[in-house]
Amino acid sequence: MVKVGIIGYGYWGPNLVRNFSAVNDCTVAAVSDFRKERLALVSKAYPSVKTTSDPDEILLSKDVDAVVIATPVFAHFPLAKKALENGKHVLLEKPMTSTVKEAEELMGIAKQKGLLIMVDHTFLYTGAVRKIKTLVDDGTIGEMQYFDSSRINLGLFQPDVNVLWDLAPHDISILLYLISKKPTSVNATGVSHTKNGIENVAYLTVNFKEDLIAHFSCSWTSPVKLRTLLIGGDKKMLMFNDLEPTEKIKIYDTGYNHKTDEEKQRVLVDYRTGDIFIPKVEMKEALYAMADDFVSCIINKKEPVSNATIGLEVIKILEASQHSIKNNGKEVVL
Amino acid sequence: MVKVGIIGYGYWGPNLVRNFSAVNDCTVAAVSDFRKERLALVSKAYPSVKTTSDPDEILLSKDVDAVVIATPVFAHFPLAKKALENGKHVLLEKPMTSTVKEAEELMGIAKQKGLLIMVDHTFLYTGAVRKIKTLVDDGTIGEMQYFDSSRINLGLFQPDVNVLWDLAPHDISILLYLISKKPTSVNATGVSHTKNGIENVAYLTVNFKEDLIAHFSCSWTSPVKLRTLLIGGDKKMLMFNDLEPTEKIKIYDTGYNHKTDEEKQRVLVDYRTGDIFIPKVEMKEALYAMADDFVSCIINKKEPVSNATIGLEVIKILEASQHSIKNNGKEVVL
Amino acid sequence: MVKVGIIGYGYWGPNLVRNFSAVNDCTVAAVSDFRKERLALVSKAYPSVKTTSDPDEILLSKDVDAVVIATPVFAHFPLAKKALENGKHVLLEKPMTSTVKEAEELMGIAKQKGLLIMVDHTFLYTGAVRKIKTLVDDGTIGEMQYFDSSRINLGLFQPDVNVLWDLAPHDISILLYLISKKPTSVNATGVSHTKNGIENVAYLTVNFKEDLIAHFSCSWTSPVKLRTLLIGGDKKMLMFNDLEPTEKIKIYDTGYNHKTDEEKQRVLVDYRTGDIFIPKVEMKEALYAMADDFVSCIINKKEPVSNATIGLEVIKILEASQHSIKNNGKEVVL
Amino acid sequence: MVKVGIIGYGYWGPNLVRNFSAVNDCTVAAVSDFRKERLALVSKAYPSVKTTSDPDEILLSKDVDAVVIATPVFAHFPLAKKALENGKHVLLEKPMTSTVKEAEELMGIAKQKGLLIMVDHTFLYTGAVRKIKTLVDDGTIGEMQYFDSSRINLGLFQPDVNVLWDLAPHDISILLYLISKKPTSVNATGVSHTKNGIENVAYLTVNFKEDLIAHFSCSWTSPVKLRTLLIGGDKKMLMFNDLEPTEKIKIYDTGYNHKTDEEKQRVLVDYRTGDIFIPKVEMKEALYAMADDFVSCIINKKEPVSNATIGLEVIKILEASQHSIKNNGKEVVL
Repeated sequence: MVKVGIIGYGYWGPNLVRNFSAVNDCTVAAVSDFRKERLALVSKAYPSVKTTSDPDEILLSKDVDAVVIATPVFAHFPLAKKALENGKHVLLEKPMTSTVKEAEELMGIAKQKGLLIMVDHTFLYTGAVRKIKTLVDDGTIGEMQYFDSSRINLGLFQPDVNVLWDLAPHDISILLYLISKKPTSVNATGVSHTKNGIENVAYLTVNFKEDLIAHFSCSWTSPVKLRTLLIGGDKKMLMFNDLEPTEKIKIYDTGYNHKTDEEKQRVLVDYRTGDIFIPKVEMKEALYAMADDFVSCIINKKEPVSNATIGLEVIKILEASQHSIKNNGKEVVL
Repeated sequence: MVKVGIIGYGYWGPNLVRNFSAVNDCTVAAVSDFRKERLALVSKAYPSVKTTSDPDEILLSKDVDAVVIATPVFAHFPLAKKALENGKHVLLEKPMTSTVKEAEELMGIAKQKGLLIMVDHTFLYTGAVRKIKTLVDDGTIGEMQYFDSSRINLGLFQPDVNVLWDLAPHDISILLYLISKKPTSVNATGVSHTKNGIENVAYLTVNFKEDLIAHFSCSWTSPVKLRTLLIGGDKKMLMFNDLEPTEKIKIYDTGYNHKTDEEKQRVLVDYRTGDIFIPKVEMKEALYAMADDFVSCIINKKEPVSNATIGLEVIKILEASQHSIKNNGKEVVL
Repeated sequence: MVKVGIIGYGYWGPNLVRNFSAVNDCTVAAVSDFRKERLALVSKAYPSVKTTSDPDEILLSKDVDAVVIATPVFAHFPLAKKALENGKHVLLEKPMTSTVKEAEELMGIAKQKGLLIMVDHTFLYTGAVRKIKTLVDDGTIGEMQYFDSSRINLGLFQPDVNVLWDLAPHDISILLYLISKKPTSVNATGVSHTKNGIENVAYLTVNFKEDLIAHFSCSWTSPVKLRTLLIGGDKKMLMFNDLEPTEKIKIYDTGYNHKTDEEKQRVLVDYRTGDIFIPKVEMKEALYAMADDFVSCIINKKEPVSNATIGLEVIKILEASQHSIKNNGKEVVL
Repeated sequence: MVKVGIIGYGYWGPNLVRNFSAVNDCTVAAVSDFRKERLALVSKAYPSVKTTSDPDEILLSKDVDAVVIATPVFAHFPLAKKALENGKHVLLEKPMTSTVKEAEELMGIAKQKGLLIMVDHTFLYTGAVRKIKTLVDDGTIGEMQYFDSSRINLGLFQPDVNVLWDLAPHDISILLYLISKKPTSVNATGVSHTKNGIENVAYLTVNFKEDLIAHFSCSWTSPVKLRTLLIGGDKKMLMFNDLEPTEKIKIYDTGYNHKTDEEKQRVLVDYRTGDIFIPKVEMKEALYAMADDFVSCIINKKEPVSNATIGLEVIKILEASQHSIKNNGKEVVL
């Protein structure tokens, strides 16, 4: 039985408590939040769960095996560090930390102490992304050529991180989950309309040694909501539209072949459009699967799907993107 | 009566002949193309129009007042130069030329000789773009904050120019038509999957001194077709979806206000979503309006809507974008 | 303080308890259901609410002022009758009863005893329908000419009533709410694929003395889900698409004028298409507003929006439609 | 070589001349129309085609083997009769004639004289309908259970026939093409808003001995355009949306099984939703295939796809529907 303590009971908190409560071999021992009214909600819904406004009562407790950290990003590192140092396994909400250095330090402590550290990139547990992973792994898509994400809406401006830190981690983690190629550099541009240097519209290109390109378009100031991912392979292409209630993934038997016309020294391109296939996608709650993976990897000492390596790579890309934006879009090597 | 000669009778040629034939105070005198079978089509449809495989029969003809150049881009400059030097007004298909230098030289000759030189950015004559221009000019949109274009499809790879040169001119010309602010620099990234260095997927950011950002996403290798433009102002936002048969423009009474909370030193943001308005848009053929503007500006010695200044600015941005792509996305000042 | 007892804790039960608990001047006193496991859910979520498997403990209780009946339709009449006879106000889930006779008898008892009887046609409390009501009442739409509803999906086959009884009440109640004209007759056709005489696909036309027509298309066996209402007036037309998350209502400045050409003895028709307007619609929970209306009408002795007269008219149309289906679609006068 | 004469050069005329000109073993000999300005268009586009304002110059000409009749419906019968009596094969635009009696008389003459009579139900030659035919014939769909058509728009009011005669023939011909079952009766309802008894909104149910139902919703007064066909089989279901540029047909692996629960005497239903498949559909011009079928069936003395039997059945259903509408929707046996 893994006894979990949860620090931070904001927007995401109730979902975490509900799902960890439902996972086998797991119990929610305690929840902490500095807001009394939030703790009252916990007590009402889960009378047996201990509540506290002092996170140390979780971090130092002998009745807690694992700590889930669902606070604002800036608090991730100190809380996680203390948890690890006190022998607790750690689950961090995304993004993992504010800096690469922090993430690497946490991973070092975890490794040294034999503890699990994991990041909640929930999307990796959705039926849709699992389906896409299968289509990439079994060769249906072929060699990936581009990955194009649009994640825009009239959104909740974050006070401390820009729109890339807020919205891009979802799709960056999906990209890293799907491929084994390593990104080599990034370029990012953006603009802030809030006079505080925090970009609310931003664009990120992730470059690879191979002829693969990944692009992320993020905005908190769009009148329309988009959650769209286009993935092109040299065999097939697909679109993942997360706003579609059932037809989330469309696989296009679409492609082109190019050959160099030696005589005329130019490239000839043949196009092909064919059938479209919309696979049924499992609709189980992704957060439950994430919680279950965390608990089961603690018990079985395995590596979770949404592991710290992916979490760290996401931070590397975000940190580099911030450097690029502040330097007028120049390439930042990873 | 303006006598027009048309050089190049490819995909766009029949549309040009049909529309210039319909314009008042204008007649199509001659068409040239080096392909005999194309000229046969002209003769069949327009028996009274002279055809020739030698462009000089148009460029040097005393029966021609104005020359329309609808050839591949690389031929624009020599043909236009000869036309101007022989006292003809010139209309160039987009993009104007292959380089900024060429465009500037042509404009210099035209100015010196008192001739009209104009670029066919047809979109500026569509009912939709004219409507958007009105909404910008009358203050409905407010101060423009972002301009976000997606123009992707499974497209006709061009053999000599990349996807930005092919697809971005439409939306760049719209941007320049709408605003009086001057772009200051660009960043561009892209990838070629055809082993010839010609990018088939590319992204372009156009930067301004003010907190306005413009972004262009272009692809010849998308399984879905998009022709979408999002424009955000500080009063309203709009979406132009050119694939919608009738509901092309949606105006969102959507916005946000931010104020700095002095005490807590953070930015507070209020959101507002309201009604949506879909104005009726005139559906007349834009190419006719463009042809009519060309002829009428020759006669009345006026400046056309789609003038050479816009054409030149488009080339400046494209040339800079190419420089940026080849230099790993670095900022290129305009 | 109105003390409410709820009979039936099925699919809709938790929503009823939650909303009645939130309404001012109202408390949920007791919930009854014959299934022990359902009652356990009540106790867990609402420890202070009394639970019982015997509805009489609600119907005869001195601690209950009003009874909400959320059972299968066949049980509506006996439960409501007993409630009224014991001096309780009654709210019935839709459809009100299985027959017109039952509905009329209940209304008679309520009138005689000075009690409120009301039917939960929740749609009448949605922001969208309230907006449409305004557009009809203020003359925006003009004289209503047609009302066309499609409500289809791969649905929950009901064991005792056909698809019209299950799905049409929503849109029939909306129709009756919007207009003051009285329907005069109905025609209905349908088919059963379940060998039990219960139609799973059915079509209903409701006729009026005036040149207004209403049509309802209902199916439990469609691969796609539709929740669409088209309303045509002689001034404007509108579409209500309840599946749209935000753009639920579109108002079209569309119409036509006809005049009789005396000489040629034929009708000439002019078309007009204009702007489209998507009003912002309030998104508050409709069920809360319904519950609040019930409680407040008990206290203030007023008539609710979703009153028994509408409930009865819905049953009259359903009963007639069933008669029509079983008689090969013949007209059944109301 | 089949020499074709075309009577009527209205909206559809240019398409007919263009396609018959392109068909092998066929030549367009003459076109007649009583409007001089229409004939001038023919002469300009096709200088070699004879034009005349007197249809007899086609009907009685020795240089004409086959007559295409593209006039208003009321003129179909007299023109076709005269053509057949003069030994010409006949192609009629849809609907075939104004009455069943006329259609039967024409078919009798044609049979007696060994001439081909055919109706232009163009939809039967589209790639989409041919694909659907394959899916029905090869058992993919299973036993057809319902056929539900919506064909509505802000349309061209016809001066002499109602909206069912105008719009329903397309989908009725598709229905008859797909199945071998015979319709047994119809019910129809509708309304006229033009004070001339010509319905502009109408609904038609076509009944079968088996548990198959077909329904047609037609309107000339809708603010939105729909061209949708839902077909449900006991194995799969499909939607044909003719307004989709490429994704015209969606095949849903969706269904349900019902079994009677003997003990509880009720029907239990299991639902199944699965993958969706969008087959590529051939985009060749259907009218060309229709013209080719006409010519080739004349030469090879075969039966065309869009044969007179289907044309006649369509008229039977339309005539019965008119009878039903005028008799308050009563069932009219076919």
